[in-house]
Amino acid sequence: MSTATVTSSQVIPAEALLAHWQGHRRLTRRVIDAFPEEQLFKFSIGSMRPFGAMALELISIAEPMARGVVTGVWDQLVDGNARPKQEILRLWDESTEKINTLWPQIPTARFQETMTAFGQYPGRVYDLLLYAIDNEIHHRGQGYVYLRALGIEPPPFYERE
Amino acid sequence: MSTATVTSSQVIPAEALLAHWQGHRRLTRRVIDAFPEEQLFKFSIGSMRPFGAMALELISIAEPMARGVVTGVWDQLVDGNARPKQEILRLWDESTEKINTLWPQIPTARFQETMTAFGQYPGRVYDLLLYAIDNEIHHRGQGYVYLRALGIEPPPFYERE
Repeated sequence: MSTATVTSSQVIPAEALLAHWQGHRRLTRRVIDAFPEEQLFKFSIGSMRPFGAMALELISIAEPMARGVVTGVWDQLVDGNARPKQEILRLWDESTEKINTLWPQIPTARFQETMTAFGQYPGRVYDLLLYAIDNEIHHRGQGYVYLRALGIEPPPFYERE
Repeated sequence: MSTATVTSSQVIPAEALLAHWQGHRRLTRRVIDAFPEEQLFKFSIGSMRPFGAMALELISIAEPMARGVVTGVWDQLVDGNARPKQEILRLWDESTEKINTLWPQIPTARFQETMTAFGQYPGRVYDLLLYAIDNEIHHRGQGYVYLRALGIEPPPFYERE
């Protein structure tokens, strides 16, 4: 299946990368939940998107990325239209379960292979997965500023359980 | 040196993790540089720190983290006092070179070991390193909001060269 060579210098276990991602996802879920319903698709700073739109972007990347890595089929079913916070959280939790199911189906060698995510982003699979995580951290950091600007204390960054 | 077992399920090469981090560091450097000198230690939103203070925090974590992982000695020499942008960038570039020198000195098995970073944060070495990267992405995302609020277009998130 793979032409990539797994060398002895690999340093992050597959299960640890999943645990790392799901830890971030638990924190991001708390950030979504910390927004007042009426601000989730309304409040923004400097002409940026509201946090609800960012959360939907994250949903449209996370499980579809894991699914694409497993199946080679890339699609993003969720659009960015405003919807109630409970619906965002429901989609989030559904993604969490699906990612947990998909992850063990990624063959170890696959992580070193090159794929083209969503038909337009070529890269090593581990880099594509890191990109999904990094993009989540990036937008969540922006959500922290929105919450602070709204006078709301965000959940602690280091808390991932 | 190590009691940890390296299993076949490791999926990110050590050199790729360094390249990933340095790619983020190049982007963060551009974000620092995008701030007007007079706003770097002044502008903030919602009682948060100005971006210059965050950048100094990142400097106080990055190279000291790599050094601690290699040597077992943990110290953070940089304080958060305001200083000129050029001085921040100089410290940043100095850290970049030191990290590149330190990284190949990390024995492969060390990544799986547990260390206590800076005398207070216990964790697997790969998780400690990921934490340093994640914390940088988190604060840089906040810097993006500051720049947008200042009417400045931030550098593209996906550009890491």
